[in-house]
Amino acid sequence: MSVVSRKDIEAAALRINSRVRRTPVIQLEEAAFGIDAEIFLKLELFQHTGSFKPRGAFNRILSADVPRAGVITASGGNHGQAVAYAAKVLGIDAEIFVPEGSPALKAERIRRHGAALTVTGQYYDDAMDACRARALETGALLVHPYDHPDVVAGQGMVGQEMEDQLPDVDTILVAVGGGGLAAGIAAWYQSERKVVTVEPENCTTLASALAAGQPVDVRVSGIASDALGARKIGEIPFSIAREHVTEAVLVSDEAILEARQRLWESLRIVAEPGGVASLAALLSAAYVPDMGERVGVIICGGNTASLPDPLP
Amino acid sequence: MSVVSRKDIEAAALRINSRVRRTPVIQLEEAAFGIDAEIFLKLELFQHTGSFKPRGAFNRILSADVPRAGVITASGGNHGQAVAYAAKVLGIDAEIFVPEGSPALKAERIRRHGAALTVTGQYYDDAMDACRARALETGALLVHPYDHPDVVAGQGMVGQEMEDQLPDVDTILVAVGGGGLAAGIAAWYQSERKVVTVEPENCTTLASALAAGQPVDVRVSGIASDALGARKIGEIPFSIAREHVTEAVLVSDEAILEARQRLWESLRIVAEPGGVASLAALLSAAYVPDMGERVGVIICGGNTASLPDPLP
Repeated sequence: MSVVSRKDIEAAALRINSRVRRTPVIQLEEAAFGIDAEIFLKLELFQHTGSFKPRGAFNRILSADVPRAGVITASGGNHGQAVAYAAKVLGIDAEIFVPEGSPALKAERIRRHGAALTVTGQYYDDAMDACRARALETGALLVHPYDHPDVVAGQGMVGQEMEDQLPDVDTILVAVGGGGLAAGIAAWYQSERKVVTVEPENCTTLASALAAGQPVDVRVSGIASDALGARKIGEIPFSIAREHVTEAVLVSDEAILEARQRLWESLRIVAEPGGVASLAALLSAAYVPDMGERVGVIICGGNTASLPDPLP
Repeated sequence: MSVVSRKDIEAAALRINSRVRRTPVIQLEEAAFGIDAEIFLKLELFQHTGSFKPRGAFNRILSADVPRAGVITASGGNHGQAVAYAAKVLGIDAEIFVPEGSPALKAERIRRHGAALTVTGQYYDDAMDACRARALETGALLVHPYDHPDVVAGQGMVGQEMEDQLPDVDTILVAVGGGGLAAGIAAWYQSERKVVTVEPENCTTLASALAAGQPVDVRVSGIASDALGARKIGEIPFSIAREHVTEAVLVSDEAILEARQRLWESLRIVAEPGGVASLAALLSAAYVPDMGERVGVIICGGNTASLPDPLP
């Protein structure tokens, strides 16, 4: 029995429905990218703030009694934007901690939503340590980026939408950082569909935890680490992933960059590296679908400051 | 009785269905951009080659007997890409003429599809003169960018998809260059929905023709003129527009640039200037919907070499 159920996700969807966008799905042509499968992209990068993160943030905040001090979090940048945006919409204060490695663009957008921003520490986890200390001082509500049932239930709404949009999908490819989105989707499907997680080779938070049988610290680096660079998978995402994730695959940074280029060349969609790790798994054959398999690929983030380089 | 009927468009859709993408629609949140209407964006920029143009190109080519010399056209760049792409897919030769003002990116993509490319003349119409002369020499099939019933019928498929995706839309906002897309959509709806055309203030091909009662030459310039800079509306598009276009509005280049920025800031979608003229009409109040009006906005092109500048 998962810590997050389909009922929890349905309740989350009712709670946040008016706050988030239903993101579209596009079906690719036969043999797109030379792959003998039916490929569908769920364009979750067009969500408010450019990633799926507002779903979990709104569900967590709207499920809680928010103290006068408002909300607080730490983030590689996407969750921070989502919390800042949700706080603005809901008229509450927000304080966001990001590590020094977070892209300037993400920090700037957090500021634009009116949140108090602190840049500290090398990695996301260091920013989270500073955030926790500050939360003790202020009493603000910690909106964890992934390790909370309400956050996971909010992200699970992506699975619910996907089922409605693509009832006969066979397999979902989804990136993992702290594991909130993948766990939400896996909790929605409850093993009735294949959920394949994708991580960069240098951010193997879930794959390492699955190998060890428990969450373990890993080193994180590389092109997608601002989005997918949690050093340890969340306890709650891990408990769901262990039960309901079919397979955990890895992709190289080169494969991620190529996926970003090809998404732009073929569809005029600009994603951030962490947002196309899922597609990279298909293009690099880290995941090889059966012929005719119906594969839903979650494109989950679009916070980038540049167009991809042209293909050589 | 239009020169292009709903039946023509249905036949075109059957003919080209396997060649083009069904592009998604996204509904924006209540009061998006501060406008009291329900706004839906049809993301036709994710079509093959980054614009709606393959619909008309495929329909024209697949409806004709293509001679050995293949196909030939002139274009500001988007139609040229579409014809080059269609020719590649269908295994026929293509020769494309673009004016000197066509963006390097568009010319490069035409070359990548394997077409013979000639850059000549200042404006699209000059390139078309050269194209016509060459067609007489080679006997290639001229695939006109807009002034042909099969091209208009192919573009009309955007209207058919829209009706299926948004059966109760009230109004469609669509950009006009030579008028093929707008005429196709207007021919689909046959005045049963409001079709509002949008042109840059410095490319008023349709608005000037409506005022004069017939197609007239206009001067064209500005930020979107590579896509919307025909000097004269097509005879066939004009005959349809005169009957079935509700209103023709104009937008400034500044409004187009702002729409491009806001589409990126709010949705992480990157369009070319001509692709967001439709949205610019809403944002600049060139078209003011009634409260609660359901407005479908066609975002019709994404061939750009740069992200929008950040908002000030």
